[in-house]
Amino acid sequence: MLDRTSDPDHHRSVITFAGDAESVLESAVRGAARAAELIDLNQHRGVHPRLGALDVLPFVPLGDATLADCAALAHRAGQRIWQELQIPVYFYQAAALRPDRTLLEKVRRGGFEELRDSVLVDETNSPDLGGPALHPTAGAVIVGARPVLIAYNINLATSDLAIAKCIARAIRASSGGLPCVKALGLALASRSQVQVSMNLTDFNVTPPHVVFGEVSRLAAAAGVTVAESELIGLVPRKALEMAFADSLRLPGFGSASVIENRLADRP
Amino acid sequence: MLDRTSDPDHHRSVITFAGDAESVLESAVRGAARAAELIDLNQHRGVHPRLGALDVLPFVPLGDATLADCAALAHRAGQRIWQELQIPVYFYQAAALRPDRTLLEKVRRGGFEELRDSVLVDETNSPDLGGPALHPTAGAVIVGARPVLIAYNINLATSDLAIAKCIARAIRASSGGLPCVKALGLALASRSQVQVSMNLTDFNVTPPHVVFGEVSRLAAAAGVTVAESELIGLVPRKALEMAFADSLRLPGFGSASVIENRLADRP
Repeated sequence: MLDRTSDPDHHRSVITFAGDAESVLESAVRGAARAAELIDLNQHRGVHPRLGALDVLPFVPLGDATLADCAALAHRAGQRIWQELQIPVYFYQAAALRPDRTLLEKVRRGGFEELRDSVLVDETNSPDLGGPALHPTAGAVIVGARPVLIAYNINLATSDLAIAKCIARAIRASSGGLPCVKALGLALASRSQVQVSMNLTDFNVTPPHVVFGEVSRLAAAAGVTVAESELIGLVPRKALEMAFADSLRLPGFGSASVIENRLADRP
Repeated sequence: MLDRTSDPDHHRSVITFAGDAESVLESAVRGAARAAELIDLNQHRGVHPRLGALDVLPFVPLGDATLADCAALAHRAGQRIWQELQIPVYFYQAAALRPDRTLLEKVRRGGFEELRDSVLVDETNSPDLGGPALHPTAGAVIVGARPVLIAYNINLATSDLAIAKCIARAIRASSGGLPCVKALGLALASRSQVQVSMNLTDFNVTPPHVVFGEVSRLAAAAGVTVAESELIGLVPRKALEMAFADSLRLPGFGSASVIENRLADRP
């Protein structure tokens, strides 16, 4: 296990683990089982959208693994989750079985409370495995495969949710903002702050420091300041190298400029 | 060899190489010999201070090596350079044999042209090995041991040398500026720019991004902009992590937040 991030307002934990394919598969299925034992979505409240006790299970290629390897693993995990736990499964992104299920947010739209009812009347909403009814307490698991994604949140020193929603709309790719950025405006009641909660789906296109600069600019224009930002899970080294090169105006800077990278490359 | 940086205005090359102790020692002595063959300081002009054809030879601990290991290696290198090449040697920083030779800039003060004459009349300037006369064309080699240092230059979009000198004076530690920063203002005739040329002797205390911020602020106050900055040699990974945490206001961020670091730490 590489990382766990939990948050009282999201009421959600993100757990990052790595290993060989079989270990990761086994761990994922056990994690799904334990989440279903512990969490009853009928009792659960949180500001982040969710469909399942284990809400989303993305397999991510590291090292020599490919996205196709991860998609195959996602399909095996989904089969086991349905067969062993009787929790229905949707497949998304590189593991999607239907073109309209490529985007996670489209699969999750409406969340547990809405989808629980709509699957019974509209079969286009049916899970890919199991269903049509969702599991009564654990909902459904959205299983996928995707490249590394950076989950990145910026907290604003205001409790005005409209400002976070406005900034989220301005920067999200789907409304003409920054490419490869998904964004929501959320309230963090426990901190009396609001948050621009983001997924950077390709940090090579839009890295975190560019998002920070743009959100800071929009926040300043709205008369508020950035309180802090946070990463959910881990960040790839290259995102740091990109930030360093840009913010210090180092035109020739790259991975090969870092001592440890060069020493690791030695024969 | 990990890196080589050359510059027409400095008229100077910085070569970074790594290896086991014996290989590095042998390479350093051969490098000193070749520099002495190729460079006659009587013909050499450049904006950066220098005392020798091979001007400065610092041994830096990486991996399991200690500063004491590097000081011992520096002393062996110095002995060989004097005995085999008849080039006098000064020892500095962790390899210094005299307390007044701890600082490189004090040993190098006046450079080849001044020291060549003054060693003959003032024996307090004598090399630690050889001399008192310097080598007629290769000067002397300043051999030392020190922790990782970041050589970092910021170029200003002006040809007004007074501005670079004024900023260098404002930020250098010796005149009450940023701790662990040495700075010179230099003219870059080939670019019609001026440069604040710096050594960051402990980047844990003052990292490059802090220097960039301060120089940018002082430049703006003087009505000029930063054109770009450059690293001479390589930079440790931790300097990137410090910059990322600060510039994105990520309070909990550290080495353990980077995917590749966590994977490398796995048992």
